[in-house]
Amino acid sequence: MNATLDGDVVRAAGDARQRFHDARGYGRASGPDVTLARVEAAHLLYRGDIDSVSGMDFRAFFRDSVAGESGFAARFLVYADLRERGFYLAPARAGWPGSADGRDAGADNTDDDSDGRHDDADILVFERGEKPGGPVAHRVRVVGEREELAAASLGGRTLAVVDEESEVSYFACTADGGFDGRTEYDLPDDLDADLLDDRVVCWSPPVDLYESAFYGQPISGRDDADVDALQLSLVEAADLAARGAVALDADAVIERGRAVEGERFDRRLSVYRELRDRGVVPKTGYKFGADFRTYDAVETVTDLPHSERLVRVVQPDHRFHPRELALDVRLAGGVRKRMVFALAGDDSNDYLTVERLTP
Amino acid sequence: MNATLDGDVVRAAGDARQRFHDARGYGRASGPDVTLARVEAAHLLYRGDIDSVSGMDFRAFFRDSVAGESGFAARFLVYADLRERGFYLAPARAGWPGSADGRDAGADNTDDDSDGRHDDADILVFERGEKPGGPVAHRVRVVGEREELAAASLGGRTLAVVDEESEVSYFACTADGGFDGRTEYDLPDDLDADLLDDRVVCWSPPVDLYESAFYGQPISGRDDADVDALQLSLVEAADLAARGAVALDADAVIERGRAVEGERFDRRLSVYRELRDRGVVPKTGYKFGADFRTYDAVETVTDLPHSERLVRVVQPDHRFHPRELALDVRLAGGVRKRMVFALAGDDSNDYLTVERLTP
Repeated sequence: MNATLDGDVVRAAGDARQRFHDARGYGRASGPDVTLARVEAAHLLYRGDIDSVSGMDFRAFFRDSVAGESGFAARFLVYADLRERGFYLAPARAGWPGSADGRDAGADNTDDDSDGRHDDADILVFERGEKPGGPVAHRVRVVGEREELAAASLGGRTLAVVDEESEVSYFACTADGGFDGRTEYDLPDDLDADLLDDRVVCWSPPVDLYESAFYGQPISGRDDADVDALQLSLVEAADLAARGAVALDADAVIERGRAVEGERFDRRLSVYRELRDRGVVPKTGYKFGADFRTYDAVETVTDLPHSERLVRVVQPDHRFHPRELALDVRLAGGVRKRMVFALAGDDSNDYLTVERLTP
Repeated sequence: MNATLDGDVVRAAGDARQRFHDARGYGRASGPDVTLARVEAAHLLYRGDIDSVSGMDFRAFFRDSVAGESGFAARFLVYADLRERGFYLAPARAGWPGSADGRDAGADNTDDDSDGRHDDADILVFERGEKPGGPVAHRVRVVGEREELAAASLGGRTLAVVDEESEVSYFACTADGGFDGRTEYDLPDDLDADLLDDRVVCWSPPVDLYESAFYGQPISGRDDADVDALQLSLVEAADLAARGAVALDADAVIERGRAVEGERFDRRLSVYRELRDRGVVPKTGYKFGADFRTYDAVETVTDLPHSERLVRVVQPDHRFHPRELALDVRLAGGVRKRMVFALAGDDSNDYLTVERLTP
């Protein structure tokens, strides 16, 4: 069967509507014919279901499409991979199944953006067993591994990253940190403490400050030590100073934090405070390359649960490099934690959970 | 017992030489007395072995030392941690045990640098059971988690990173990639290929190009495909073009690589080529957040071994952020690979292997 290129779509007549659209969920019906997006037509050529598009075989049509549509090669690879996994798909595109119609002026998100994306997605994946137009399982955003991605645009999308060797990795992005803070404790008043370089030492602290509230790290953990002291990080100390628990000027601690860390300190402190306010315990995530690891519910440090999440604090306009995203999410998965990005803004923080996914 | 601060050292008399130097390896002997570095004196105060230094208790002396020596707090924590692990230690310092004497003008590395480091180290750890001055097990460089580190200065050193909550992580750094390339294959001549966007498609390639030499990724892996093609990454294609295996202009491929990746492409290609020349097979490390994963010996892709290393390509003057180092090395360990940094220079590449260590 031969099909015809018509602007940015491909039209097929004869029994194409029955064979490709009705039976296998390609394209959109146009009266007796079927209209295919380029990615759909390329897939049918690739499978040998159609022989040519306006005289072009797969190789020629693929070249023509790569030249004509930005990101086509990656989109084709993801389309083929998801079809192989047994899903019905549609390009996310005004008027295609599952997307609002560009002609419906009353609907939200009716227009495709300048990259041809509709509603920040490239491909809609329908729930297993559902035909095009049914419930959507994944709104897939396709990116090459070299493209940067605005963190704020990813909530509710499934990211398909095509690496330089054309393998596809999937990530589910949820606009929620998923925290369920249930840690309770009382804080002391005005403890004696020294601000020393880039940390704080708190002298002869009550046991519960570490053991229940899980602030700091004892310097006196050694059997042979003669000293009773708790070391606090600067975020911990700034938080405790603001709550009146240590006798230090909170602003002086914050100034020291900015001196050693720049404005990143303010963002980290903002997230730290919010998590503490929500009953979550953040501790350093250094060993996992993150800002914090977090515990929803600490009863005692002696009987510490597994920390559930790693948190990386970023700016609200942060753009991910897909390679860094792969690194963070893979590491978190390897230590049975969820990876959460905190988009720390001036007035409030947003959270984005990213997980690896096998569709 | 009381000791006395004298410039940047502490002097103790009486039975101090016998008790601290001869029996327990602190300080250097000065006639009948012992001379202690600040970190050694602080440790003796912390343990209650001496009562004061020029009237200062542990708290006062610690404050005074933090004010007087850059990085003192981190150095103290590492010193105490290593002592706790049962090692004899000495500050890396001209004239202290294990370091060359600053007064010996003929020796290399006789002077301490402006940070007080001797031979790029802060603390010498002697082999287990060895007294100060015996064989050195670790030349320890101490850093806070916020300090950047010149990659080129780390070979042969053990890095002790003190995180913001005062936990210490150790990394062994070796100025060698440890590659043992044993992969052999023949390449074809002038294969038909298209440069398409940020990848190359090679049409109807010989089976061995993928199966033995492990170049590319078949686009025709699917059972239902009608197309026989191998996708190549741009580094793979540039390497194959330079070797005459694909009929593409190597410079055109390199130009495309620079267009999508900048000058980073040249560095990655230089490392890729060198590894191929040495019989090592580099494939993308994207899923591990690295530039490459590498195989020393590939017989066939059907029977592919575990890849042994992850390689991240950096500039020769690269400075590590300790948090990124922790992330890379931890991830590599979690997937049973070694982490190698390739310092890609204009004329040659150097390699640095970094591993977590428990002293």
